[in-house]
Amino acid sequence: MPERWAPPPALADFVELDHDRAQRRGFPEAVLCESKSVEQVRVIAAQVRGRAARTLFTRVTDAQVGVLLAELPDAVHDADARLVAWPGEPPEPTGGLVVVLAAGTSDLPVAREAALTARHLGRPVETVVDVGVAGLHRVLGHLDLVRSARALVVVAGMDGALPGVVAGLVEAPVVAVPTSVGYGAAFEGLAPLLTMLNACAPGVAVVNIDNGYGAGHLAAQIAAPWGDAG
Amino acid sequence: MPERWAPPPALADFVELDHDRAQRRGFPEAVLCESKSVEQVRVIAAQVRGRAARTLFTRVTDAQVGVLLAELPDAVHDADARLVAWPGEPPEPTGGLVVVLAAGTSDLPVAREAALTARHLGRPVETVVDVGVAGLHRVLGHLDLVRSARALVVVAGMDGALPGVVAGLVEAPVVAVPTSVGYGAAFEGLAPLLTMLNACAPGVAVVNIDNGYGAGHLAAQIAAPWGDAG
Amino acid sequence: MPERWAPPPALADFVELDHDRAQRRGFPEAVLCESKSVEQVRVIAAQVRGRAARTLFTRVTDAQVGVLLAELPDAVHDADARLVAWPGEPPEPTGGLVVVLAAGTSDLPVAREAALTARHLGRPVETVVDVGVAGLHRVLGHLDLVRSARALVVVAGMDGALPGVVAGLVEAPVVAVPTSVGYGAAFEGLAPLLTMLNACAPGVAVVNIDNGYGAGHLAAQIAAPWGDAG
Amino acid sequence: MPERWAPPPALADFVELDHDRAQRRGFPEAVLCESKSVEQVRVIAAQVRGRAARTLFTRVTDAQVGVLLAELPDAVHDADARLVAWPGEPPEPTGGLVVVLAAGTSDLPVAREAALTARHLGRPVETVVDVGVAGLHRVLGHLDLVRSARALVVVAGMDGALPGVVAGLVEAPVVAVPTSVGYGAAFEGLAPLLTMLNACAPGVAVVNIDNGYGAGHLAAQIAAPWGDAG
Amino acid sequence: MPERWAPPPALADFVELDHDRAQRRGFPEAVLCESKSVEQVRVIAAQVRGRAARTLFTRVTDAQVGVLLAELPDAVHDADARLVAWPGEPPEPTGGLVVVLAAGTSDLPVAREAALTARHLGRPVETVVDVGVAGLHRVLGHLDLVRSARALVVVAGMDGALPGVVAGLVEAPVVAVPTSVGYGAAFEGLAPLLTMLNACAPGVAVVNIDNGYGAGHLAAQIAAPWGDAG
Amino acid sequence: MPERWAPPPALADFVELDHDRAQRRGFPEAVLCESKSVEQVRVIAAQVRGRAARTLFTRVTDAQVGVLLAELPDAVHDADARLVAWPGEPPEPTGGLVVVLAAGTSDLPVAREAALTARHLGRPVETVVDVGVAGLHRVLGHLDLVRSARALVVVAGMDGALPGVVAGLVEAPVVAVPTSVGYGAAFEGLAPLLTMLNACAPGVAVVNIDNGYGAGHLAAQIAAPWGDAG
Amino acid sequence: MPERWAPPPALADFVELDHDRAQRRGFPEAVLCESKSVEQVRVIAAQVRGRAARTLFTRVTDAQVGVLLAELPDAVHDADARLVAWPGEPPEPTGGLVVVLAAGTSDLPVAREAALTARHLGRPVETVVDVGVAGLHRVLGHLDLVRSARALVVVAGMDGALPGVVAGLVEAPVVAVPTSVGYGAAFEGLAPLLTMLNACAPGVAVVNIDNGYGAGHLAAQIAAPWGDAG
Amino acid sequence: MPERWAPPPALADFVELDHDRAQRRGFPEAVLCESKSVEQVRVIAAQVRGRAARTLFTRVTDAQVGVLLAELPDAVHDADARLVAWPGEPPEPTGGLVVVLAAGTSDLPVAREAALTARHLGRPVETVVDVGVAGLHRVLGHLDLVRSARALVVVAGMDGALPGVVAGLVEAPVVAVPTSVGYGAAFEGLAPLLTMLNACAPGVAVVNIDNGYGAGHLAAQIAAPWGDAG
Repeated sequence: MPERWAPPPALADFVELDHDRAQRRGFPEAVLCESKSVEQVRVIAAQVRGRAARTLFTRVTDAQVGVLLAELPDAVHDADARLVAWPGEPPEPTGGLVVVLAAGTSDLPVAREAALTARHLGRPVETVVDVGVAGLHRVLGHLDLVRSARALVVVAGMDGALPGVVAGLVEAPVVAVPTSVGYGAAFEGLAPLLTMLNACAPGVAVVNIDNGYGAGHLAAQIAAPWGDAG
Repeated sequence: MPERWAPPPALADFVELDHDRAQRRGFPEAVLCESKSVEQVRVIAAQVRGRAARTLFTRVTDAQVGVLLAELPDAVHDADARLVAWPGEPPEPTGGLVVVLAAGTSDLPVAREAALTARHLGRPVETVVDVGVAGLHRVLGHLDLVRSARALVVVAGMDGALPGVVAGLVEAPVVAVPTSVGYGAAFEGLAPLLTMLNACAPGVAVVNIDNGYGAGHLAAQIAAPWGDAG
Repeated sequence: MPERWAPPPALADFVELDHDRAQRRGFPEAVLCESKSVEQVRVIAAQVRGRAARTLFTRVTDAQVGVLLAELPDAVHDADARLVAWPGEPPEPTGGLVVVLAAGTSDLPVAREAALTARHLGRPVETVVDVGVAGLHRVLGHLDLVRSARALVVVAGMDGALPGVVAGLVEAPVVAVPTSVGYGAAFEGLAPLLTMLNACAPGVAVVNIDNGYGAGHLAAQIAAPWGDAG
Repeated sequence: MPERWAPPPALADFVELDHDRAQRRGFPEAVLCESKSVEQVRVIAAQVRGRAARTLFTRVTDAQVGVLLAELPDAVHDADARLVAWPGEPPEPTGGLVVVLAAGTSDLPVAREAALTARHLGRPVETVVDVGVAGLHRVLGHLDLVRSARALVVVAGMDGALPGVVAGLVEAPVVAVPTSVGYGAAFEGLAPLLTMLNACAPGVAVVNIDNGYGAGHLAAQIAAPWGDAG
Repeated sequence: MPERWAPPPALADFVELDHDRAQRRGFPEAVLCESKSVEQVRVIAAQVRGRAARTLFTRVTDAQVGVLLAELPDAVHDADARLVAWPGEPPEPTGGLVVVLAAGTSDLPVAREAALTARHLGRPVETVVDVGVAGLHRVLGHLDLVRSARALVVVAGMDGALPGVVAGLVEAPVVAVPTSVGYGAAFEGLAPLLTMLNACAPGVAVVNIDNGYGAGHLAAQIAAPWGDAG
Repeated sequence: MPERWAPPPALADFVELDHDRAQRRGFPEAVLCESKSVEQVRVIAAQVRGRAARTLFTRVTDAQVGVLLAELPDAVHDADARLVAWPGEPPEPTGGLVVVLAAGTSDLPVAREAALTARHLGRPVETVVDVGVAGLHRVLGHLDLVRSARALVVVAGMDGALPGVVAGLVEAPVVAVPTSVGYGAAFEGLAPLLTMLNACAPGVAVVNIDNGYGAGHLAAQIAAPWGDAG
Repeated sequence: MPERWAPPPALADFVELDHDRAQRRGFPEAVLCESKSVEQVRVIAAQVRGRAARTLFTRVTDAQVGVLLAELPDAVHDADARLVAWPGEPPEPTGGLVVVLAAGTSDLPVAREAALTARHLGRPVETVVDVGVAGLHRVLGHLDLVRSARALVVVAGMDGALPGVVAGLVEAPVVAVPTSVGYGAAFEGLAPLLTMLNACAPGVAVVNIDNGYGAGHLAAQIAAPWGDAG
Repeated sequence: MPERWAPPPALADFVELDHDRAQRRGFPEAVLCESKSVEQVRVIAAQVRGRAARTLFTRVTDAQVGVLLAELPDAVHDADARLVAWPGEPPEPTGGLVVVLAAGTSDLPVAREAALTARHLGRPVETVVDVGVAGLHRVLGHLDLVRSARALVVVAGMDGALPGVVAGLVEAPVVAVPTSVGYGAAFEGLAPLLTMLNACAPGVAVVNIDNGYGAGHLAAQIAAPWGDAG
């Protein structure tokens, strides 16, 4: 038997974007940066510029931001959402309105990631913050806006009760995002995750803990214009 | 060394009520019947009649009810709450009002156990059913009653969101009871338990899953008249 | 202080449908029957007939079916899905197509509950069974149908891998339903639930374990015609 | 369709206190500082001074303390409890006595947060430390004080056994606070949390792990004077 | 290669006692019957009689008892402990005293299994029942007996607090047995198991949930006479 | 839009075997019967007979056995392993020896399912029972047989320690099967599952709890002759 | 009502040793230092010197060691075990031999804490390291020493199999200590903890994860001379 | 009784390699470095050089690398895999091909550890990266290579779906390695671990989370030449 020994690719050498995944799905690409090296991110950014494909860089670290903005000068960085969008200008909005609600100020980074994602995927977006169930009048005060949405994203930590309350008030689907905000028996987001999965009102679509990007993407899909078929 | 061999007491022979626990605490006795044999329950009932001490028999099985009513003819059995109270007539109500809320009809047995317990411990009690957060207008429709309570018991399964919502609307403490109602990710009551422990509004006192007796007892303590000391 | 003692409502006496919840949400009502007594279900059925409001009875027990069909003669019972729909004839289909996929035959009851729910909420529905990831060619063989959907429901137990695979192939949102099918480390549906929450492809909306009704409802909302408001 | 694109509020720009929540509940406001930026806390402190509303700042970080004391010169900082109270002087005590017990010295910070909270909400407060169940004589040595309380807060980590023991000795409700003190199978407070939920004696009200503020608030509500309403 | 196909032994054919395990360890044999067929148990009983080796049959089912008493006429069956001992007469007691405490009457079967095991392994044994921490005076009332033990077994479900309290009062080791008694957040014995592992007082030896046999065996080893080596 | 309404297939109508999966993999087919109706199993059996493809029916219920043996008269049923093999005669053995070890008699059904599966997939198989780590001499007594295996299956419940011990003694891979045998903190097989995943010796391949079929299949793959097929 | 406002004791002011706990139990005191401030530890050390009571300081931090050695010059610090003993010289050994086994070198710190504790409580102690079950011959090589023990402490992480293996070889009780050594599915010591609770051989006494002190204390109690009573 | 007091070995003094374990198993030795001190690693390296036995040092820290390369100059360090191999040159490849697949770039370090391990144990190895199930065409594009393997290692985090998909495509066994890559409900690798244990296709051998070494070792054993015995 001949020698078969191709040494496995090293971490720093490997960058291969799934170009056609985006094409296949019809949405911009996304690059989850958290677990990548600065050098890998730089190479990817250069490829992105070369292909001129709209791209979101999520969960970027401080060290990665400089590299990204150097390679993609017209990109925009949002520090709270830990997001770099390229190009920085989102597309012309089409489809239905996406409304993003955050139960508390601590949920704002995740809500912002969701809102920016949905907006860069082409939807019109509105955001409302600090409407937790401990102050019901606040939710009720935004009822008109909330009911005008084609899709909602509701972000909440701790008891995670807001998505179920909102779903009982609207006709559109609610994308529920549990956050790891809280302490003790919140168990890093497990408590609001379970709450949302058990929401009494139907129409609640749950995504992973702190997954603002996924929530924004899902809401953008729900509210997408559906051409002749819709 | 002399022989030391007192054979351990057999299950059927052992019945010894903690008479002074009730006296010490100032509340009626309670006998958790679920894990006792019919014969043990019969012996205890006879002792209770002999001492003439107000007693609640909780989580009674069908087989135990007959024995209890035979030994204590003026006892009253509530099938939904699985409770036998002796004497059947509760004491004259004193102290503040206890309001019991059940999120859904499935939570009614536990709510009823809580309400009857608080009433037999001497509090005035009102009960409202099916006020889950999926229909906020229902909670809000009972706002006057809810705000007149000195203590509330809020019973909810599945997402367990109701106690936190109610606590945000009232001044009095809320005793929260998670129930094992639900399926899947409700995990036999774990989900609403975590929700309640993480309620955003302060003033939520959590008890064990399905523990209607404990909730009613706690509410009765909170709403008890405190004499000169209060 | 006057006597305040309204005895709590007994289980058998309590039936109050949330009539306006359905109206408010714009969808048929649903009655979760599993935790209700036969008598409660009978009273509710009579109310439903009186109000002539389209209603789904979910998770019906054998004992409840007879009562439902007696009160609502033109209802239809689906034994596999444990569903009674009234009226039995679903509305004229509107909106986008809902495609329901079941990974294995054991997932069929939940898939069927989802499909019937979506259909009775007014959507056109197609169902495909036994397309688990252990035989990829099966999924790929249905690609045209799958890509024509406005919303998908993907039902899977055990490893729960199918929704993520499907989401990588389509543009529409995927409602993922973990089932309690399996044994051992499936932990009653926990394993596929976690798999779905961690799906690598965006666009996966997770609902509770075995919650076919919720999945069908969510898919029907996503695929609903959005008329002038969109 | 017109452009709809209100960019979501950034983290540093957002500060909006729930002014009427406090008014509605009848208790001082509380600001959970842990997850807020120093700048957000500064803005809130300025608002608080403007409205002259009694406020507690909980879980303050070292960086936030300087800003708070600069904005609110007559505030008082308690380093152990990580609490800043404004004004520093608590109100004249009314209602029943709140007794706070800590099982060990490691539980003292949480106990202190509970005691200060109850005191600033207007209750008279006494604190006793290091009365764990491994030395029963210590608990018994404080029996007179313990029995004079209208509400107790019992703080314990590790085995969390103290609240159940105390509840067996007193007539008043016991607010039980599990702490994350301990290691190994204490699982960050899960062990004492479960112990307290399963306490054999009725009258134990459980709050979240390390939630000294919540426990003090609940005890203050229980021991509040109930005036004409009771 | 020759055929290698020895069909695996069928369930009913397989019985092979670990004779020398007992000899090696110096204690009577034990046969865990719960997962064995009636026929297997019968064969084992015949072997036991043949070898004349002292043996305990634990967790016996009703169907197995008849077979055991037929094969071993001088055996004794204890229904509460689900134990058959052969011979029925325990050996002359040697070594230190084993005291078994049960927190509640529901813990009695497990306590009885522990007591009988320790007695049949040759220790003198005393049993005290219903000494839960909710009534401390009860524990304290047995202090002299408890302090005379060379080893203690403390059985408790629900909060599982008793072993830690007892360990704080005595010099001898405490074998702690959590029981599956309780409901809700007792999680089938997980709660008392964690409590006991986190007991504040040193000297607590934890065994598996409901493992009365193991506890009695361990206590018998601890209290065994140690001859010249001690 | 034309009507699209193909009612989903009913449970009783659906049977479609994955014929080419087996062909594709090169191993006999397997039909997991536990979650199938008797009628479904009958239809599948008829298909199997028609195609004359070697097939294993696993986890068969009593009601299914009769139907299987009627449709496939030359099938063989093993009651302990809950397995029906068709044809009953296994193929001529090829490849390396598979040795199956069961830690205790309670693990025998799972071990037997593994042994029969490996044998019907074409491997020579030997089985050894009751070689738990509490009696090390037993394992050591079978060392020659154990070391002659090309693949081992080690089945153990409770502490699940045996596979790690065996892996330290042999050169061949060990397929480890945790079983749900045991009680209390065995948590239905979770304990031995974790033990096996953490085995100190390398060379341990873990499968799902009670998954004897999967273990036998994996061992048969490992020990397969690699000659012409490789 | 007079003002009742004794401000709770601050963390730095509170030090009160449980002097009589040690006296009551008949063993040296122990001070768990991990959660105490340097100043608290200094005050306690001064008290200890004043009372001249033998004391162990466990889980000491680097910052605390200096203070302890300054206050107690004849104390001895063991860096691996994170233990300071005062006086440094252990008492004359009495009672039976305690043998401490560590499965791997990573378990050595916990094993050393156990060994030093048992030795300072007065027992003769021997320690053997790296005798994991992956190399059975190692355990068997120490069989004479192991069988001469009156009590054993067996420390193991990862699969935690060693205590069960050892318990099958000896007559004396085995104190089993799970460690948090390992990664992944070891879950910070949960895996070996469950293994030990499910050990097949009786005679295994489990303590908390990483609790070397507790294990040494328990072993010292078991092996203690029992005077005339034994 | 003579003094028995051999102080336990200190951490820095203890190094004893299990030389014969490797010999006994027929594979190179491995030293898990993560939990060892730099000095311990240096001593071990010197021993290894002395015995000239092929050795892998896994999970090496930066501080340990320098010491290792100084003691073993012809060793090779792979930073991504955290592996030092000595000698650096792997043996001549024998046996079947091992193919290592990584679902994403974040799984590369674990995949690389597996590939290098298998290669240094003597197998020919090929590695393919970024073939997650969200892009099925990628897996299918490598089908020829994948099907030529005698053993596969499939590394995946998050949903962990890839091993089950691959096992459905090949004849050879698949060693599945869950990784701790991901966040939220991935629970540090628990989610992919459960997915892999529940894989629908047989032939999946699961190892511990992030255990690249163990996976490479197992694959090397499976693909080993089996000489005359096979």
